[in-house]
Amino acid sequence: MTMSEYPRFMDVDVDKDITGRITPRDGPVTVRNPHIESLPEDVLYHLDLSDKANDLPAMFGDVKFVCFGGSPNRMKKFAEFMVNEIKYKIPAGLQLMNISHGSDRYVLYKVGPVLSVSHGMGIPSLSIVFHEVLKLLYHANCTDVKMFRLGTSGGLGLEPGTVVITDAAVDGLLRPYMEVATLGMVLQHPAFLDKELCEEILEIANQNEGYNSVIGKTMCTYDFYEGQARLDGAFCDFTAEDKMAFLKRIHDRGVKNIEMESLCFAAMAHRAAVKSAIICCTIVDRLKSDQITATHDTLEEWQMRPQKIIAQYIRKQMGLD
Amino acid sequence: MTMSEYPRFMDVDVDKDITGRITPRDGPVTVRNPHIESLPEDVLYHLDLSDKANDLPAMFGDVKFVCFGGSPNRMKKFAEFMVNEIKYKIPAGLQLMNISHGSDRYVLYKVGPVLSVSHGMGIPSLSIVFHEVLKLLYHANCTDVKMFRLGTSGGLGLEPGTVVITDAAVDGLLRPYMEVATLGMVLQHPAFLDKELCEEILEIANQNEGYNSVIGKTMCTYDFYEGQARLDGAFCDFTAEDKMAFLKRIHDRGVKNIEMESLCFAAMAHRAAVKSAIICCTIVDRLKSDQITATHDTLEEWQMRPQKIIAQYIRKQMGLD
Repeated sequence: MTMSEYPRFMDVDVDKDITGRITPRDGPVTVRNPHIESLPEDVLYHLDLSDKANDLPAMFGDVKFVCFGGSPNRMKKFAEFMVNEIKYKIPAGLQLMNISHGSDRYVLYKVGPVLSVSHGMGIPSLSIVFHEVLKLLYHANCTDVKMFRLGTSGGLGLEPGTVVITDAAVDGLLRPYMEVATLGMVLQHPAFLDKELCEEILEIANQNEGYNSVIGKTMCTYDFYEGQARLDGAFCDFTAEDKMAFLKRIHDRGVKNIEMESLCFAAMAHRAAVKSAIICCTIVDRLKSDQITATHDTLEEWQMRPQKIIAQYIRKQMGLD
Repeated sequence: MTMSEYPRFMDVDVDKDITGRITPRDGPVTVRNPHIESLPEDVLYHLDLSDKANDLPAMFGDVKFVCFGGSPNRMKKFAEFMVNEIKYKIPAGLQLMNISHGSDRYVLYKVGPVLSVSHGMGIPSLSIVFHEVLKLLYHANCTDVKMFRLGTSGGLGLEPGTVVITDAAVDGLLRPYMEVATLGMVLQHPAFLDKELCEEILEIANQNEGYNSVIGKTMCTYDFYEGQARLDGAFCDFTAEDKMAFLKRIHDRGVKNIEMESLCFAAMAHRAAVKSAIICCTIVDRLKSDQITATHDTLEEWQMRPQKIIAQYIRKQMGLD
């Protein structure tokens, strides 16, 4: 699909910024913000980096794959896992470090061309780090970067442990865009993902035995309990029948899983013209249960599935397989 | 103001749950969810606690003050700070521990009647932990609990370092309620705060010299950059003039500061009938700058201001002053 085939929403033009400059879909990572060039210093506050205090091109110029996940520990482990996966040579006496250790908001690890970043929980938390990672990649003159979100989610009608590759993210009303209240106006940013990349990842995922992988629609909510039709929050003003009717209705319309970041991830990557994919393991079948009762070890194994799939993808891209 | 004087929004009745049961404003902490009683086990997943695996009344029955803040490190330091402030005796050979260490989503410390909890960034992240903390207080049979959010914010027309006590939280369109897409309907939850508690806290804050404290309206956004009219995000489709016109317009309408959690905090505490207050230090004057350039030490000192005010309030409530 070319850029011009994407539908338009309100006054947001995904091709051009306010200066009329076209954002290329491949090539260097750009920001859609003409003000950035005139900033005396660009402080990436929540990452504890700055384009003046740090030599960002030297530090990050070779980045090709940015992998996001909610939990700081999980993204630290992913970085450690990638060291072996891509045979990254760490000189004797050195070890991986959290580049953003000066801020305790997010973790940021670098393993050769791979960044491993935590995003916390929910759209606003992801949105802050996504803005700052995009600016980092821009200042570092990175090119041909791909972004991935590796996460967990509630599944619908799927065996827990199934991997869902998102082809469209929708909000709690099934709308395929993220709304951002901007200067008193609610702007809508379409949440498109790259279909080819989805298919490529599914092909790799299907080489793994012991679980299924599917492509499907992901519902993204602002609330874990009521927003996801759970009966076990501190508040619940609906019945078990209301809940099941809603979940079945969205399931019938192609929603395979529910989480809390996909809409923002897809919308921001699309707007930045960066190819991206979302790969989430399901940890509960919401058509059967609300509570997550799998053992710690089982959850750990499930959470590794998207990581292993992306490691295989990255190895292939790097010509290591 | 009594409960019945509060305006109503859509079909959300803040007095009664779906069984018609009245939620008392003082007394035991209740959940507005009739399903909780019939759960075989209530797993507070993101806190790594459960009403069956843990003796919650024994662990938490004496809690009277729950203090939330975004950063895990800051809330750890707040717990350590409170040990001295309330002269909490820790037996030899013991130390404070993060009760939720089994989950790396939030930290949870307990110092006598004080809980110190991190909430991450943004409404969805706060909302998850708020649901689970309310359920924790309910299972533990806590009574007469007050909740506080201690945070940082961008100020409007205020010297950085000023403390703002929120008397009303509004969204990016100045609407005084949080919207939650629930089973396909957008429900509106009014974000009211206790005026008397605001005044009480202002009186204590004013005893501190070297900075000002004010009561005012807080705007709560879902996005740190465009949502807060910043020119320095990865995306910006407006001019510096557009930005200033918007910030001045909201400033004229009483908005003193901007952050990312107040709307949810006020709405959930109000709905749970728990008295609550929001105390944020401003770390930048948004009428002058977007970027946060104060030194680390200055930021640390500013962030301590809300903590010190609440410590004074708690000491007073405990009869220690």
